[in-house]
Amino acid sequence: MNILILGGGGVVGQKLAASLARIATLRGQRIAHLTLADIKDPAPVDAPFAVATTVCDIADPASVALAITPQTDVIYLLAAIVSSHAEEDFDTGMKINLFGTYNVLERCRQLGTQPVVVFTSSIAIYGGEAADPLGDHSYPNPQTSYGGQKAIGEILINDYTRKGFIDGRAFRLPTISVRPGLPNRAASGFMSSIFREPLNGQRAICPVDADFLHYYLSPRKCVENLIKGANLLADDLGQNRVMQMPGRTWSIGQMIDAMTEVAGPAPAELIDWTPQPDVQRIVSGWRWDIHAGKATRLGLTADDSFQDNIRHYLADDKP
Amino acid sequence: MNILILGGGGVVGQKLAASLARIATLRGQRIAHLTLADIKDPAPVDAPFAVATTVCDIADPASVALAITPQTDVIYLLAAIVSSHAEEDFDTGMKINLFGTYNVLERCRQLGTQPVVVFTSSIAIYGGEAADPLGDHSYPNPQTSYGGQKAIGEILINDYTRKGFIDGRAFRLPTISVRPGLPNRAASGFMSSIFREPLNGQRAICPVDADFLHYYLSPRKCVENLIKGANLLADDLGQNRVMQMPGRTWSIGQMIDAMTEVAGPAPAELIDWTPQPDVQRIVSGWRWDIHAGKATRLGLTADDSFQDNIRHYLADDKP
Repeated sequence: MNILILGGGGVVGQKLAASLARIATLRGQRIAHLTLADIKDPAPVDAPFAVATTVCDIADPASVALAITPQTDVIYLLAAIVSSHAEEDFDTGMKINLFGTYNVLERCRQLGTQPVVVFTSSIAIYGGEAADPLGDHSYPNPQTSYGGQKAIGEILINDYTRKGFIDGRAFRLPTISVRPGLPNRAASGFMSSIFREPLNGQRAICPVDADFLHYYLSPRKCVENLIKGANLLADDLGQNRVMQMPGRTWSIGQMIDAMTEVAGPAPAELIDWTPQPDVQRIVSGWRWDIHAGKATRLGLTADDSFQDNIRHYLADDKP
Repeated sequence: MNILILGGGGVVGQKLAASLARIATLRGQRIAHLTLADIKDPAPVDAPFAVATTVCDIADPASVALAITPQTDVIYLLAAIVSSHAEEDFDTGMKINLFGTYNVLERCRQLGTQPVVVFTSSIAIYGGEAADPLGDHSYPNPQTSYGGQKAIGEILINDYTRKGFIDGRAFRLPTISVRPGLPNRAASGFMSSIFREPLNGQRAICPVDADFLHYYLSPRKCVENLIKGANLLADDLGQNRVMQMPGRTWSIGQMIDAMTEVAGPAPAELIDWTPQPDVQRIVSGWRWDIHAGKATRLGLTADDSFQDNIRHYLADDKP
């Protein structure tokens, strides 16, 4: 079992690599080799199998051809330009999120090895005229270029699978929170930083009201689901390989109360409530009445509570 | 008013050009110039304004840059590789239907002139797990690469419009029947040939049963709708620029009865009922319970009857 994580240097990629190192099997087979690839050389992980790290620019077909070999059995395609970044820099978003995805799928087709491809789509594909409640069979009407590029990726995953070029599966990720590390250029960044920074003793800005509702998943559960997602059999997935990954809907206020319950009252006092119109404009188009019917039936799960999510951060990530 | 028809050599493109020549205005302005562009030099039309014809390969950005100029006000993007062709030749389908569309939109973005772009999508975007009844807000779950490429085009039209790069509108065309001229490589070809050839005194093969239901529009109505589609104002269209074009659902048997009512019993006797599994496999995945809510509200229309449709063929197209 040879695994490649494209985006292996990111938060989810690194946590996925650490989990794979711990379980040492995927799809019922012992892992022989794991490659972490990213636009900058990713940090390696300690594992009971061979681990390589490599620089790969998915916008460059030649670079993709070096990363995906005839021996690659499972590809995690996590690499992406996130929402605010893709909104500001349209070219780079298209280059990575659309053409990068295409380059990966084309390489698989050229090889003819039909690898498993796990693609991370996003709840950013919902929006506009799509009717609530939202889920596996909702109309994608994204209100960001990032969401549009992810919606296109979903269609490509389905078509390359239908044609027998890959064995694909695409999961629309909820917003990942509490996301460790430094802020990225996602408009959803504050949905982690208002917990992460205060739990680390630092101040953070909340740019929306306490009643702002959104759909969340912890990094730990996300990685669990990505591993289950690779393990799913083609017959169980059926012809449509695109589905919502389970999450939970909470208000900012509920989440802060959960943090206070787990970590005491001090962190919440480090939050500055400063409206930011640019962020509000993007996130107000996002949706929260989301249901993960198919993935739930297939055994993927959400966090039981946001208290759990805070505990995961403290256990897994607090510096 | 300068108009470009990409796919100007095709059946719809030629009829659209003839209609534009007749009305001589679009979007409330006199037409000054019409360019018909296609992969082979298209036939010109007689018009009370300047008409140019040109060879344009939309898969080639340099070719697209020659066809779309700073003076181009309205672009009809009709050029496509049709369903069976794109299914047999995956590369060419992707090159024309996905990257060709991208090249056109990118040229518009580079120019910064925000032209009106009228894109023809297709009911082939419906399928699989999308629930009936189908329409503007249905989940696209295409079962052909052609349908996937059209669904991607819809997302790009919406995003390039949202970003202010174009003033786009995309219409999911019903199956066009009775389509004049020679058969093309669309799996839907028989849905025209079983009327066209018998009305011309020739035999034709019907590869499906008489109770096969499908969703149709005459070429005449399609062109009327494409002209109305260009005339629609951005404010009336709203943020979501993708919609179903009106059509009507009929069975093959009903359509043959309509032909007999208009043209007598002889044509129907020229139909050979020969099942074709390859065609059946594709068209059985197509859908017919389709409703064009938004376009109907905006004034686009379907044929009143298939009898009318037969009369249109006899009046407009019979050699």
